[in-house]
Amino acid sequence: MPIQTNETPLSPEELSATHRYWSACNYISASMIYLRANPLLREPLTQDHIKRRLLGHWGSDPGQSLIWVHMNRLIKKYDLNTIYISGPGHGAPATLSNCYLEGTYSEVYPDKSRDEAGLLKFFRQFSFPGGIGSHCTPETPGSIHEGGELGYSLSHAYGAAFDNPDLIVTVAIGDGEAETGPLATSWHSNKFLNPIRDGAVLPILHLNGYKIANPTILARIPHEELEALLTGYGYKPYFVEGNDPLVMHQKMAATLEAVVLEIREIQKKARETGDATRPRWPMIVLRSPKGWTGPKEVDGHKVEDFWRAHQVPIDSVVDNPGHLAELERWLRSYNPTELFDAEGKLIPELQALSPTGTRRISANPHANGGLLRKPLNLPDFRDYAYKGDVSGHSEAPPTDILAHFLAEVMRQNMTSFRVFGPDETASNKLQYIYTASPKVWNAEFKPEDADGGELALDGRVMEMLSEHTLEGWFEGYVLTGRHGFFSTYEAFVHVIDSMFNQHAKWLEASKKEVGWRAAISSINMLITSLVWRQDHNGFTHQDPGFLDLVTNKSAEVCRIYMPPDANCLLSVADHCLRSTEYINVIVADKQNHLQYLDMDDAILHCTKGIGIWDWASTDNGVDPDVVMACAGDIATQEALAATAILRERFPDLKIRFVNVVDLYRLQPSTEHPHGLTDKDFCSLFTANKPVIFNFHAYPSLIHKLAYKRPNHDNMHVRGYKEKGNINTPLELAIENQVDRFNLAIDVIDRVPRLQATGAHVKQWLKDQIIESIAYAHENGIDKPEITKWRWPY
Amino acid sequence: MPIQTNETPLSPEELSATHRYWSACNYISASMIYLRANPLLREPLTQDHIKRRLLGHWGSDPGQSLIWVHMNRLIKKYDLNTIYISGPGHGAPATLSNCYLEGTYSEVYPDKSRDEAGLLKFFRQFSFPGGIGSHCTPETPGSIHEGGELGYSLSHAYGAAFDNPDLIVTVAIGDGEAETGPLATSWHSNKFLNPIRDGAVLPILHLNGYKIANPTILARIPHEELEALLTGYGYKPYFVEGNDPLVMHQKMAATLEAVVLEIREIQKKARETGDATRPRWPMIVLRSPKGWTGPKEVDGHKVEDFWRAHQVPIDSVVDNPGHLAELERWLRSYNPTELFDAEGKLIPELQALSPTGTRRISANPHANGGLLRKPLNLPDFRDYAYKGDVSGHSEAPPTDILAHFLAEVMRQNMTSFRVFGPDETASNKLQYIYTASPKVWNAEFKPEDADGGELALDGRVMEMLSEHTLEGWFEGYVLTGRHGFFSTYEAFVHVIDSMFNQHAKWLEASKKEVGWRAAISSINMLITSLVWRQDHNGFTHQDPGFLDLVTNKSAEVCRIYMPPDANCLLSVADHCLRSTEYINVIVADKQNHLQYLDMDDAILHCTKGIGIWDWASTDNGVDPDVVMACAGDIATQEALAATAILRERFPDLKIRFVNVVDLYRLQPSTEHPHGLTDKDFCSLFTANKPVIFNFHAYPSLIHKLAYKRPNHDNMHVRGYKEKGNINTPLELAIENQVDRFNLAIDVIDRVPRLQATGAHVKQWLKDQIIESIAYAHENGIDKPEITKWRWPY
Repeated sequence: MPIQTNETPLSPEELSATHRYWSACNYISASMIYLRANPLLREPLTQDHIKRRLLGHWGSDPGQSLIWVHMNRLIKKYDLNTIYISGPGHGAPATLSNCYLEGTYSEVYPDKSRDEAGLLKFFRQFSFPGGIGSHCTPETPGSIHEGGELGYSLSHAYGAAFDNPDLIVTVAIGDGEAETGPLATSWHSNKFLNPIRDGAVLPILHLNGYKIANPTILARIPHEELEALLTGYGYKPYFVEGNDPLVMHQKMAATLEAVVLEIREIQKKARETGDATRPRWPMIVLRSPKGWTGPKEVDGHKVEDFWRAHQVPIDSVVDNPGHLAELERWLRSYNPTELFDAEGKLIPELQALSPTGTRRISANPHANGGLLRKPLNLPDFRDYAYKGDVSGHSEAPPTDILAHFLAEVMRQNMTSFRVFGPDETASNKLQYIYTASPKVWNAEFKPEDADGGELALDGRVMEMLSEHTLEGWFEGYVLTGRHGFFSTYEAFVHVIDSMFNQHAKWLEASKKEVGWRAAISSINMLITSLVWRQDHNGFTHQDPGFLDLVTNKSAEVCRIYMPPDANCLLSVADHCLRSTEYINVIVADKQNHLQYLDMDDAILHCTKGIGIWDWASTDNGVDPDVVMACAGDIATQEALAATAILRERFPDLKIRFVNVVDLYRLQPSTEHPHGLTDKDFCSLFTANKPVIFNFHAYPSLIHKLAYKRPNHDNMHVRGYKEKGNINTPLELAIENQVDRFNLAIDVIDRVPRLQATGAHVKQWLKDQIIESIAYAHENGIDKPEITKWRWPY
Repeated sequence: MPIQTNETPLSPEELSATHRYWSACNYISASMIYLRANPLLREPLTQDHIKRRLLGHWGSDPGQSLIWVHMNRLIKKYDLNTIYISGPGHGAPATLSNCYLEGTYSEVYPDKSRDEAGLLKFFRQFSFPGGIGSHCTPETPGSIHEGGELGYSLSHAYGAAFDNPDLIVTVAIGDGEAETGPLATSWHSNKFLNPIRDGAVLPILHLNGYKIANPTILARIPHEELEALLTGYGYKPYFVEGNDPLVMHQKMAATLEAVVLEIREIQKKARETGDATRPRWPMIVLRSPKGWTGPKEVDGHKVEDFWRAHQVPIDSVVDNPGHLAELERWLRSYNPTELFDAEGKLIPELQALSPTGTRRISANPHANGGLLRKPLNLPDFRDYAYKGDVSGHSEAPPTDILAHFLAEVMRQNMTSFRVFGPDETASNKLQYIYTASPKVWNAEFKPEDADGGELALDGRVMEMLSEHTLEGWFEGYVLTGRHGFFSTYEAFVHVIDSMFNQHAKWLEASKKEVGWRAAISSINMLITSLVWRQDHNGFTHQDPGFLDLVTNKSAEVCRIYMPPDANCLLSVADHCLRSTEYINVIVADKQNHLQYLDMDDAILHCTKGIGIWDWASTDNGVDPDVVMACAGDIATQEALAATAILRERFPDLKIRFVNVVDLYRLQPSTEHPHGLTDKDFCSLFTANKPVIFNFHAYPSLIHKLAYKRPNHDNMHVRGYKEKGNINTPLELAIENQVDRFNLAIDVIDRVPRLQATGAHVKQWLKDQIIESIAYAHENGIDKPEITKWRWPY
């Protein structure tokens, strides 16, 4: 279905204007790296006009601006709705210069006005202390992708395109970035896109040729291999290659138009016929010189079309008069005085090339997704409550109960809510969601898929065995104003540690530095298949350390919830789905677990985030002998069982039972908005009594959060300590001393009046431990009777 | 260059024997999931013979065993030297059954003898508490790749092949795993392999069809797309597809032989001609049914060739007589009594198919790399010492100095040492290593590469913009007995957090559980381009949190070093290169830094790991007023400057200056082998004086390590707290209060006798802060004079 287009679609006048507009982009991109004065070169360039520290990335700017400028032509011609994602985000000058020329920058930041004074401020702030960064940071209008770390541009682009049928997401993929794993697999996202329901992604692989100091792989394989690779990924590649700008303008104009028309034709056909079967989407390979139009050589070294053009092509400009002259030659080659008028504004002939209003890429509201975001239609989560026995004797599957709620959320938000999980939605017991919408799948089908396959072209559950791609889709979806829910195995959420870090930083900067960005939905992550039920998968599947990373990030944007049972999980999930601008991390296991709270109590408990469970305590509200605290479902179960044992063995012992849902309650109120005051903390944990804290994750995290607390020295924390192999659940708990028996021993060891009388009980507890492990090794399961101490015993 | 081979290379007798050997593999694989008695089905199967908890992954086992069995034929025919990497490592039964049949298992674990009693023990221990895991864990002979987390099989395989010219690394890549990012980009490893110097990797993409509950992408794209994709990755794919075992044996025998001969032909030609230019390496796509030869249907649901065969194909065997009968039918379909003799040993006719001695895949010493490992030839690192001024006034580039040492290490170990870095060796100022060996590159060359490109077919520095691939290569290289050094950007080492976790767990299990594994070299990681010099790249490039993860892992295998200057870095690097079975994390910045210690002092300091710097202290060895402690190069510089300011302003103040190189010294000796006793700790940090600790990373880590210490409540830690944008270095330090001025204020605030007299100094310090930031915002650089307080002032 090749679209026939003119090979030289630009008239001589259009060609000239396009080239000059592009020259203006390039002039601005180069100048923001160098100039602190004389922004339009009205005077001869001197050392005084040069920044003292030269920072920024020139290499990919001209290529990226070429894409933008030619996209502008088509936006105007076809009234396209498009955003642009800059994979080589270090090349922010390309995005920034286009933002400025389109006027958006001055609208958002009025002091960077469209005149010489504003232009100068715009130059000076770039990559300058107190100014803006050298990537497409949140401060950049039109950006949803900073690109500070590489690999996520294409998955972000797909995330933006889902459920946005009119949107074309143009994404420049750097050939350096293309070497990363996350990018390499995200090409397969086309098997999850529905051409009827979703928008289009137009990937432009920018063969810029070099990374910091190396050639790129994809620029150094034969044409046939590259074409085969992209064909193998399921695309139809078009090649735009060359270095003569005037020839390249015609090629790019023709190819981009052909590709856009092909996209529209694909969509039209799918939408008219109702056949959403995966088409072969077009894409472009743009091979242009790195540092294009910059200096060819400096000091006898090749610069243009080589890695030396990556950052600042001419350095030491202040000290080296030859370099200064070379820089001036280069900057004047763009003829700035002919591009800008006397006030310093782009001349009207060129300004006419830019789209206007929200059709400008830099002003498209999809790139400020909070503007488009509508709150979810949420059913009443209380309708999904677990209504069975909540006395701590009966088990229920929390994530399955959650799935019933999420299914209804899905049903009520069939164009703005998606669920993500790496082949684990069903494994994580969330498969009830499929009753609202199956898994999206746009590859081949087989008849047997009907038997529990739950695959459909218009499904809304996203599953691919790539945490990177899923998280990228989710972020792109949320950044453009929608909502989602991600579930993943606890041990392997570390795969996306770095993506978490980057999104947290994006959110923090957006919230604190960028007033004009409207609030987007939170990233909601359910961490499940928890360490304590990885007794069968063994050591590699046991790592609860993601929370340590989360707590390194700003208190402004991170929340951690550890609901102890199903009703608490529902309450927490509802809260998270309503929230904006957070990363909400919910830790809850997928297996059957004991249930403790009816819905009213659960809401109360989750709203407080931490509380004394009177029904499990024996201190009658007065001064206890010991505080038994816990956070996490399995940790709570064992702490309760320990309390039951202790109550049986020491009827006079006064135990206070504290459960923590909202982990940040432990931090001082001065550190985190959810933190308790020291007074409130002591009202729970006492000022001087021993506290046994049974924690889901690594024990040091509790110390990290609570080390400034008055009673911290009395806190004795149990948690995972890297002890595990193939075990039974109880054996795994015992290995790490988070089990009922060891916790009871901890209490005996720390309550002075038990130390004499408790010796025989302690021996009995030790016997239980030995017997438990022996039984497990003989039978492969835990002895049913041995786990019987449930609350109340 | 297709090799002509017989399409049905197996005679009827060979075919029969091969099929029966394979049946023995499959019988054992299935039985280890189910049986706890009656291992050879000498009696009718009853519920009593069945394990109480059924665990294990059946799905990929028959396909993986097919590869192994046919590889055995070629090992014997051509005396091949080969190891096998199981990407779908969850399918350990395939590897384990082959290990057992080859006899290796019984040699390593004599109680799992080659008779009925041993076989039963072998079955019972599988995925059983107190037994072995269901992956190819370190306990598995022949395994260097557990596969508990997916994505690294192919990069491990290439790592094993580098510098092993005779080795063929056969690697089964699961089609689930193939969806991960790390795997998707690791196909490009062929651009870094030299057919003269290195061995061969034979990737076998196992199109098993399904993940846990979903089809795989690569099994559901048209044949042409898959072929194009693999061709695009640079391979020549051969397809072996079908489900009739007898037909498939012939196909596999023919194709595998053709491919092996093609590999040998490629190597022969390259080695004879001396032309190492990248060939098109062959690979195999094996499309076989998931759960092949297992039950076709259970309870009316398709099982074989469907995702339901992923784990345990027939469940509830104990409770469901129909299932029990179905299981017995299935297991008896392999005719176990005809495969094993009266004692329970494989019959000699079949045993003859197995290679012997170290040619057995399961006994190849490359898979127990410590057996082959030779210590590095190390030059005397003292010869590379920085010999300039070490009074704290002069700067030198630590990583450049290190590079001179590493270059000589490279020169002296040109077949067993490699250096890894994601396009950052030069950026990290290690480029002097190129004088010993350039970067390996086996893609296209251009003339300009001669100008600083440092690329060569036989280079030994590995650079690709994929931390995943590099770390995978490095691990594979070390696991097979060699040595290496990895450098990477601090913020983006999080990309491989999860790989670090998995390797740490592998090391710990190897050290503690597997006596027969010989010690391999340590993973040596230089974390550089540190947070405090990412003032110009901004917020996204600032994250020192990797250490938080490292300290979650076992003290048995992790080491963290923070050398404050170049000579300390040399001393630490030498120590790490000599060590085995650790992950050594060295944190050192790449910029110019002040130098404090001559080589003798550096060796002394690094050997102690922590120490008082008398020359920087003013307490004359008696009780100080305050301890100024620090860890990390930039943290040390600022702490020293603060001390200089304080000495000038308060000549009577007694400051003790403590520097930490070996971070684990802070942990109690009961927690880490490097930990100090409390007594030694107090002799440094005092029992009751205020300690200001200036730390390189997040401050909570010091509390995590030291919270049990006697004087912990007096420790006031400064470190990174997520405050950063585009800054000058000093401004970034100020934002996070790790700078000289804020540290001096901290001292004034905490030493009681300064609180009255110090008010005017404090005001002056605050003025310095304001002035510093104002200057930075005006000039874009730090005021040279303002940073002048160097030790001694």
